[in-house]
Amino acid sequence: MEEKVLQAIQDEYPDDFSWCYGCGRLNEKGHHLRTGWQKEQTITYFTPEPEHTALPGFVYGGIIASFIDCHSTGSASLALHQKNGHVIGDGSEPPRFVTASLKVEFVKPTPHGVQLKAVGNVTEIHPKKWSVETEVFANGVLCAKGEVVAVVMPNTFVQKS
Amino acid sequence: MEEKVLQAIQDEYPDDFSWCYGCGRLNEKGHHLRTGWQKEQTITYFTPEPEHTALPGFVYGGIIASFIDCHSTGSASLALHQKNGHVIGDGSEPPRFVTASLKVEFVKPTPHGVQLKAVGNVTEIHPKKWSVETEVFANGVLCAKGEVVAVVMPNTFVQKS
Repeated sequence: MEEKVLQAIQDEYPDDFSWCYGCGRLNEKGHHLRTGWQKEQTITYFTPEPEHTALPGFVYGGIIASFIDCHSTGSASLALHQKNGHVIGDGSEPPRFVTASLKVEFVKPTPHGVQLKAVGNVTEIHPKKWSVETEVFANGVLCAKGEVVAVVMPNTFVQKS
Repeated sequence: MEEKVLQAIQDEYPDDFSWCYGCGRLNEKGHHLRTGWQKEQTITYFTPEPEHTALPGFVYGGIIASFIDCHSTGSASLALHQKNGHVIGDGSEPPRFVTASLKVEFVKPTPHGVQLKAVGNVTEIHPKKWSVETEVFANGVLCAKGEVVAVVMPNTFVQKS
């Protein structure tokens, strides 16, 4: 049975910021990743599409990197939102983050055809810069590790006119 | 005008290894990344699809990570193939690589709607382990840097029965 995050930070982003291919709810062709709390950790689930293969039977690494990327920016948003005194659903707009750096260590080939689970630990390293360490599991087995530095979205990251 | 790699290592992979979502020529829904030599460096071009956005106007980081991933494994394959005395088109099967680790530094927001160019430098660090350092350009401007360690595909990476 597929598990699901009930309260996700991405559900709270304003429409203008919901076009991300990884986690934007308005991007029809995207992955629709959703990230929430599980006690002190953050979690995201994802079941890769049939075409998301490296070789038949195994998940493509770029998809795992994408999974970790949005899981991490979502995790940072969850953490800063909480630090600011908010909870999901209280009507306040969560902060948006962008990825400064992304590192993925591929621990073992990730089996295709099962739901993946990302589990994150978030640490503040500066009021506008957060570190997210992630483990990705398939069938309970650790397949990849991620290290992301996420920063509060700068003003240079605005829509082109 | 879009530029194109004329002789790509991915064109030489056997059919069984051409299902990668990033660079498999047989994966109909994939990105079809193709990597070749440009003097001593390796290059790959990619024009993201309309849906590959982070915000409208900018390319999604997970897509840039995917671009660097396949560019790097292709670059390692090119380099080892050359070390083994082969050139693309001589009828010999190139070695296949998998990604051990992938690091992406996002230097600046990557504009959407233009062809991206990845330029790689490949170094042997062990007969079965190669390092690929990549710079990704949009309109000639450096937008991201990649560091990948690619390893010759191990026997554990075989198709599930």
